[in-house]
Amino acid sequence: MDNNLDMLFDFFREIDKEKQIGRQSYTTPGIRKENDSEHAWHMAIMTILLAEYANEPIDVLKTVTMLLIHDLVEIDAGDTYAYDEEAKKTQRQREEKAADRIFGMLPFEKGKMLRELWEEFEACSTPEARFARTMDNIQPMMLNDATDGKAWREHGVRREQILKRNENTHKGSEELWQYVKKNFIEKNIDKGNIL
Amino acid sequence: MDNNLDMLFDFFREIDKEKQIGRQSYTTPGIRKENDSEHAWHMAIMTILLAEYANEPIDVLKTVTMLLIHDLVEIDAGDTYAYDEEAKKTQRQREEKAADRIFGMLPFEKGKMLRELWEEFEACSTPEARFARTMDNIQPMMLNDATDGKAWREHGVRREQILKRNENTHKGSEELWQYVKKNFIEKNIDKGNIL
Repeated sequence: MDNNLDMLFDFFREIDKEKQIGRQSYTTPGIRKENDSEHAWHMAIMTILLAEYANEPIDVLKTVTMLLIHDLVEIDAGDTYAYDEEAKKTQRQREEKAADRIFGMLPFEKGKMLRELWEEFEACSTPEARFARTMDNIQPMMLNDATDGKAWREHGVRREQILKRNENTHKGSEELWQYVKKNFIEKNIDKGNIL
Repeated sequence: MDNNLDMLFDFFREIDKEKQIGRQSYTTPGIRKENDSEHAWHMAIMTILLAEYANEPIDVLKTVTMLLIHDLVEIDAGDTYAYDEEAKKTQRQREEKAADRIFGMLPFEKGKMLRELWEEFEACSTPEARFARTMDNIQPMMLNDATDGKAWREHGVRREQILKRNENTHKGSEELWQYVKKNFIEKNIDKGNIL
């Protein structure tokens, strides 16, 4: 038991590093970009309040857990920007190695549980994973819209890139996809923030 | 429905501000302090992995939700440092006003649900609230220990203050309280990091 607690607290100290992993989306004041842990916190609350909009019933705790831990692999593998095609080629390999090390720090059953949730998210194979993906796509678009498309403009992001990136967003929630398409994507095409 | 989504996304943009609310604990590299959203994310994962150590069975999703939202009132009321006795005198009044405004942004039933969870956390009246409090006390002590007591040393925190602050920590989990008392508190008294 004591040894398990040592392993658990070693893991909790290790994952603190996620607070330093930067993303491309700006927080709403538009001054600094958010980090992975802030992004995960935001999506967890969104999931709790938006679960009823899922296409299929979801286990909310499972979806929240998936979102809270899905970026931990970036502690070793770094954040791969959604529109960086070069980095995306090696992403899977870098992230698997990271998953081995990071989830391997936990007592066996707990490490297995989180590893399986991460794999499920990656495979997008269940209602929970599909809804989690929808959140993972919607949350940065919401922030981009709230900062007048700042990150989109900096990267010169094009409409087709966003639609490609979001080709599965509707699979988690048709209703949310229709909402964000109108309020975040089309609005910012009209404003010239998306090319 | 559409109007509800507008309210929900207004709320999600509003709570983004929590990412700018600073706390006193340093993240593990010891360079910058963490913010409320990072703290909440960290405790949510800790809760999922430590729930079995609770004195009484807890509803994990309820406890996680409570921890994810319990500091939202600080968007208006600011963070009140655990050992700032002056600020603590007006804390409740400032936070109630904030809760009215922030949870009031949501569709009625959802606002009511989060408001009640916040009140339950404040009252510490259920197994979930007691365990959430235990997490809220343990997580910063873990970070303080990991940074060689940096925040404790900066504030000249004394042993009695920490024991007073933690007088209810055991109520969520006797086993975790024994662990942190030995590994975080007594160790740092011996090192001179706690006066």
